[in-house]
Amino acid sequence: MGDAETLFRLAGLNAAYAAAIDADRLEAWPDFFLDRGVYKVTTAENHARGHPAGVIYAEGKGMLIDRVSALRRANIYERQRYRHVVGMPVLTGQADGLILAETGFVIVRTMRDGRMDLFAAGTYMDRVGTASDGTLRFAERIVVCDSQRFDTLVAIPL
Amino acid sequence: MGDAETLFRLAGLNAAYAAAIDADRLEAWPDFFLDRGVYKVTTAENHARGHPAGVIYAEGKGMLIDRVSALRRANIYERQRYRHVVGMPVLTGQADGLILAETGFVIVRTMRDGRMDLFAAGTYMDRVGTASDGTLRFAERIVVCDSQRFDTLVAIPL
Amino acid sequence: MGDAETLFRLAGLNAAYAAAIDADRLEAWPDFFLDRGVYKVTTAENHARGHPAGVIYAEGKGMLIDRVSALRRANIYERQRYRHVVGMPVLTGQADGLILAETGFVIVRTMRDGRMDLFAAGTYMDRVGTASDGTLRFAERIVVCDSQRFDTLVAIPL
Repeated sequence: MGDAETLFRLAGLNAAYAAAIDADRLEAWPDFFLDRGVYKVTTAENHARGHPAGVIYAEGKGMLIDRVSALRRANIYERQRYRHVVGMPVLTGQADGLILAETGFVIVRTMRDGRMDLFAAGTYMDRVGTASDGTLRFAERIVVCDSQRFDTLVAIPL
Repeated sequence: MGDAETLFRLAGLNAAYAAAIDADRLEAWPDFFLDRGVYKVTTAENHARGHPAGVIYAEGKGMLIDRVSALRRANIYERQRYRHVVGMPVLTGQADGLILAETGFVIVRTMRDGRMDLFAAGTYMDRVGTASDGTLRFAERIVVCDSQRFDTLVAIPL
Repeated sequence: MGDAETLFRLAGLNAAYAAAIDADRLEAWPDFFLDRGVYKVTTAENHARGHPAGVIYAEGKGMLIDRVSALRRANIYERQRYRHVVGMPVLTGQADGLILAETGFVIVRTMRDGRMDLFAAGTYMDRVGTASDGTLRFAERIVVCDSQRFDTLVAIPL
């Protein structure tokens, strides 16, 4: 797979991931990960200091599905809409059959009354593999947020 | 035409569309549509409920050209600048020789005094065909806005 | 080099450029330019009027390196983080073996206390050449900002 094709497929994965969250199809979110995929949210400061602990950590589809169920019960999503804007991936290497990539993102939130604000910005640090059906999926997605502060809404997939 | 090439051409169409509006080349805007192309603006809520009516509806190049003429007479554009940031398209299907795609966007507005704000965010729901000269054009662009509120400036092409 | 490949390589150049700045790897910034590359920041208004003078002008790697050194001494960077969101390039022509492209961008800033704001938006007007190692680099990057006002932070590479 050439670099151009890899980039395209990664950009396509990112676009589909963002579209699922932004359209409130959260139940589709775990399927963007491999079976034992890792999802982690951390801050740029923690990440730069090499602190492995994140603000949020989930490993394996079961935990990802649980997160979505909890969100649905909490019912906090529907009061606003999110819109991801995702940059082109920067390929940073290959390891163990996985593609390593870093991708900048910004998320804009629109409240029911029309107010809009910047909700989050940061970098996706991804290790991406191929599922048995040939599609790309995340072996690991570390969401490194530019902000050091999180409110409870970060429970929403970034 | 393979998926990668389709994606690239769609991304190119979207980039050119955004650049024309952001550079205030509004007269070029109708040319991004096929002769009987449809341009519609609606809200995510209306769209989810299946309401066909939009906030704005134009069908055919004549109506699109009229919109631009009206904007020029109203002269409201020049007081601020717009900047589209458009994601990668998600291909959602093919129908009647058209490509179906959904693409997230955010528009930032810069006022003359330097203030910047988030002007709009949403999804382009597009049906894209090929013009007689081989270029891609919109058979239909439905702009589904995250916000339910619009001010008069939505008269500007999104 | 076909248009699709050119677009991909340009998008890759832009993504790497943005990632370097956003990760505070400013020392890598001059390497995105050819040896005698030009970096200029101006306003849309000045640009539209054909005023050649910009707010910031640097020509050649020496001046670019000097800018980074000055920024490091001023130490203003570390108090906040920047996040570029860059659109797909619009190819506008070829001249003298260079690719001409225009690309929209928005930069979001996150302060240490978590506040986020829109820092800048505009168009990169680029002339891009090939370095001796075959990578794409900027012969000229003119940053045309939507805002007419700049604060001192514009010293940071855009």
